[in-house]
Amino acid sequence: MPEADSPIERPHCSLAIRVRYVECDPMGYLHHSHYLPYFEMGRTELLRQSGANYRDLEEQGFFFVVAKIAVNFRKPARYDDSLELITRITRQTHVRIDHAYELYHQESRLLLATAETTIACVDREGKIIAILENLGSKAG
Amino acid sequence: MPEADSPIERPHCSLAIRVRYVECDPMGYLHHSHYLPYFEMGRTELLRQSGANYRDLEEQGFFFVVAKIAVNFRKPARYDDSLELITRITRQTHVRIDHAYELYHQESRLLLATAETTIACVDREGKIIAILENLGSKAG
Amino acid sequence: MPEADSPIERPHCSLAIRVRYVECDPMGYLHHSHYLPYFEMGRTELLRQSGANYRDLEEQGFFFVVAKIAVNFRKPARYDDSLELITRITRQTHVRIDHAYELYHQESRLLLATAETTIACVDREGKIIAILENLGSKAG
Amino acid sequence: MPEADSPIERPHCSLAIRVRYVECDPMGYLHHSHYLPYFEMGRTELLRQSGANYRDLEEQGFFFVVAKIAVNFRKPARYDDSLELITRITRQTHVRIDHAYELYHQESRLLLATAETTIACVDREGKIIAILENLGSKAG
Repeated sequence: MPEADSPIERPHCSLAIRVRYVECDPMGYLHHSHYLPYFEMGRTELLRQSGANYRDLEEQGFFFVVAKIAVNFRKPARYDDSLELITRITRQTHVRIDHAYELYHQESRLLLATAETTIACVDREGKIIAILENLGSKAG
Repeated sequence: MPEADSPIERPHCSLAIRVRYVECDPMGYLHHSHYLPYFEMGRTELLRQSGANYRDLEEQGFFFVVAKIAVNFRKPARYDDSLELITRITRQTHVRIDHAYELYHQESRLLLATAETTIACVDREGKIIAILENLGSKAG
Repeated sequence: MPEADSPIERPHCSLAIRVRYVECDPMGYLHHSHYLPYFEMGRTELLRQSGANYRDLEEQGFFFVVAKIAVNFRKPARYDDSLELITRITRQTHVRIDHAYELYHQESRLLLATAETTIACVDREGKIIAILENLGSKAG
Repeated sequence: MPEADSPIERPHCSLAIRVRYVECDPMGYLHHSHYLPYFEMGRTELLRQSGANYRDLEEQGFFFVVAKIAVNFRKPARYDDSLELITRITRQTHVRIDHAYELYHQESRLLLATAETTIACVDREGKIIAILENLGSKAG
């Protein structure tokens, strides 16, 4: 990633999420698997903010699949907690987009988790295709 | 389908299910919403047992949607419990299939829940279509 | 239910929900099992609006379990749809609370689903206990 | 734990999993978030195979939390696919256990995903505690 292209200057998106009862496990914690849909919601909102829309893209035959994910869970979240998710694009080529995520407890500002994902674009048959130029300029 | 056809003589299917950790809530109970996928698995297995296959049906353009569901929750299930689900068809017309379900705790034979669903068949556009004759004789 | 105690005068709560990608199935529809957590969110918000809080109640040893649920699915919802859920209490005794739900597509005002649930209050060991007088007056 | 202990000689566990309809998304693929509960099921079975039991451990006040997870998604899985999950412990200290996972399509033997997790042991209050010696010898 070129130095001139720092994460700080990249567009990012803040999303408020309230933890649902169904998402919490017998420990009383937000189950670790439910962080992934949160990150997906972050990507959806970041794209919407750029003027595009995943749903429209799917209707046009562009599907995004997650190729890699890595999450660090630092502190648990609990039922009814208000969280803030920060999503940003850290790298984009014509075949992949990397995002980074920070999930905070809204009141205490505690950092609960950080994550990184790599997504690729595929067609209806699941074949990898180039990411729309258009989307690139909009979302990146 | 013969009129005298009583539920008792109807084909039914028994499915073993082990409760997953992610399905349990802060009370330590299997969350009530997760019974619905269990019932869906029961329908899948009942259909498979009849020689048909939901996945093939979807590829042929026949989709099944749940129109109605009613569940009575009698006793809770817990993480790692082994359950037995009994699924049977109680009524079938050319536009709908009704199923009944009984969910048991495998060891204790306690009845945990009973349920009824009505499903309808739709095409790719979501329009209600007649249920395959073939499927009728196979599944009913 | 006495005539003087009509649903219309009862407190109700409106909750905005956006359908998540992870909640949609291969038909592209919000999977029917995911309506149940929505209804649970409706109960959470209705209670909050009355000044109480499920999380605090759980910490005090009052747990609410779903004893019965019935849902009519009328129209499908899709990924990224904005929905409005109306939740109201229809009946309350010292051992159970009945709620009714209406789920609308926000833009089109189409009614997507209606539902009814009965919840009971249990203690930490799962034994049914009387619902707090206090909660009664607040939530009902 | 002997230093020469190579991953290959370590106990591992094979678990058969059939993909559920509710776990598949509008692309028709097993949603990436649902791989995490599969890995959790792998850990549960590996522990059971060693003679211990997560549920008993929780009753004794030992809880396992996921601290880190990394997944590589290589090929999609679809509704009704029969998968095989291989779970093994790759490293264990007195405060953490690392697992590695390989998820295969049962018929084709295609490798669908690989993953690694780090879990830690906490008490009822969420404080990190030493992993039972006993569990170590049994599970590792």
